[in-house]
Amino acid sequence: MDLSLTDVLEAAERIRGRVRRTPVLELEHEDLFRGGPVWLKLEQLQHTGSFKPRGAFNRILKAAEESGVPEAGVVAASGGNAGMGVAYAANRVGVRARVFVPETAPRVKVEKLRKLGAEVVQVGRIYNDAYQVAVAEGERTGALFCHAYDQPEICAGQGTLGLELLEQVEDVDTVLVAVGGGGLLAGVATALHGRARVVAVEPEHAPTLHAALAKGGPVEVPVSGVAADSLGATVIGEIAYKVAVRTGVESVLVGEDAIREARRFLWDTCRLAVEHGTASALAALLTGAYKPRPDERIAVVICGANTDPTDLAA
Amino acid sequence: MDLSLTDVLEAAERIRGRVRRTPVLELEHEDLFRGGPVWLKLEQLQHTGSFKPRGAFNRILKAAEESGVPEAGVVAASGGNAGMGVAYAANRVGVRARVFVPETAPRVKVEKLRKLGAEVVQVGRIYNDAYQVAVAEGERTGALFCHAYDQPEICAGQGTLGLELLEQVEDVDTVLVAVGGGGLLAGVATALHGRARVVAVEPEHAPTLHAALAKGGPVEVPVSGVAADSLGATVIGEIAYKVAVRTGVESVLVGEDAIREARRFLWDTCRLAVEHGTASALAALLTGAYKPRPDERIAVVICGANTDPTDLAA
Repeated sequence: MDLSLTDVLEAAERIRGRVRRTPVLELEHEDLFRGGPVWLKLEQLQHTGSFKPRGAFNRILKAAEESGVPEAGVVAASGGNAGMGVAYAANRVGVRARVFVPETAPRVKVEKLRKLGAEVVQVGRIYNDAYQVAVAEGERTGALFCHAYDQPEICAGQGTLGLELLEQVEDVDTVLVAVGGGGLLAGVATALHGRARVVAVEPEHAPTLHAALAKGGPVEVPVSGVAADSLGATVIGEIAYKVAVRTGVESVLVGEDAIREARRFLWDTCRLAVEHGTASALAALLTGAYKPRPDERIAVVICGANTDPTDLAA
Repeated sequence: MDLSLTDVLEAAERIRGRVRRTPVLELEHEDLFRGGPVWLKLEQLQHTGSFKPRGAFNRILKAAEESGVPEAGVVAASGGNAGMGVAYAANRVGVRARVFVPETAPRVKVEKLRKLGAEVVQVGRIYNDAYQVAVAEGERTGALFCHAYDQPEICAGQGTLGLELLEQVEDVDTVLVAVGGGGLLAGVATALHGRARVVAVEPEHAPTLHAALAKGGPVEVPVSGVAADSLGATVIGEIAYKVAVRTGVESVLVGEDAIREARRFLWDTCRLAVEHGTASALAALLTGAYKPRPDERIAVVICGANTDPTDLAA
């Protein structure tokens, strides 16, 4: 599977009016102790607090166009941002959503999904159990399975964020994106190819893309650390890997302390409450894991805010 | 004292590049269960987490243009947003700032002011003690006193937010602004006069403008409630009162529960962590304290995020 700019352009047309056009905030030089300008794409202000509804809407609406959404509705496996994105999109489109999560899923996450209108099915002990059951349920009932990252429609939907960014930030040189399973990366790199460089940022403790690039293909990696709640995929998506190689995405890693500090920085300097995984992207700039030219025009995708803000109290 | 559009236009020129041009977020109809569009002006992303640096920069830079900032620097009396705005602006301009706060000021506020480069003087038991000493200190040393709201340069600086909004939201009909001492209101109403209606929103427990309009002039009112930390002024500024009467500002009140719910709404729906005082402006829309026409184009100023986000945890 690969992804084309046409896929992303069609996704943008398809989901128009369904998702928020999230704004950008320009930081001044002194904020970041560097020469060139930096823009933050505030995608954490999206419905459900992350970029995920973009892909979910695209997947559901494309199916609706082609053959109609199955009577069995849609299924997904995720107690986090992906599940919320699917629940929200299905609810707005008016189709039934069942979201499978492990029995160990925190009650607060289950409640959030229910509040978004999804039926939540708790099954198995770990995420992969819920995933297998969701896939099987899709096959058994004909329900539309929405993957958390590795489906073309999902990736294309996330890529619409990149198209917006090109309209919002003139002559952007480089865009920093945090990577878990790589759905956002795949879409954004496809949208920006030939227009701007894309840097994929991962925690040292969750290097799915980094390991894949080193090994010549997706491989399972152990995942842990502060960002594992949002960047918890243990293997990069096939689509993301293919797009990253083809478009020459640069892969960098950031440490745990750097992630914590970047998250703190975003609150202290801009009053943005974000996930640790999200802060990873900025951490690459603050630590020098990615070193821009002095005048490079940089955008950082702030992709999720489903965080407990308690520790941000001064 | 009155304020003119020229004052605000000159302020915008003067502080350009010193403050962030904060973005706007468009909410969809369904978010607010109404017909017309609503934009949030995300001024809580401003330096120091509120609009206050706009006025502080204007006051300090105007003095610098006219006769130079006094060697004694600037003085202010505030442990909150106004103090932080002055501390930040003075630090960036490179002048000394002394901020007077009561001995009862929380340590965390004192630390924040120090971190911004200000010298903090703790004096007296209540805010008014610190205020009196700050004014006297300005007179004794020649330091430039920066009022929290009732000086033309302060109001004109805050008004630059209104000019930005006119550029960002085409044909805006109505702008909702939370009111404490009225510095922001005075500036914004001056900037928008003849272009858009301004609605001043106050907590029922802090009705400084509402009481003044009823009595025919500024009067002391008892102030309490959840928003008192940011909308704590006990009397509306003379400038704000004059501008409000002259430009026909509409005054509405919102209750404590409505304020709490609006603050919660901003986190749940947009992942914006804001002060209770700030949330008051949106509360007027959510409760119907202000009832727009179905197609009315409304902007709500989100003016501060110096809040403890602990209770926003899901």
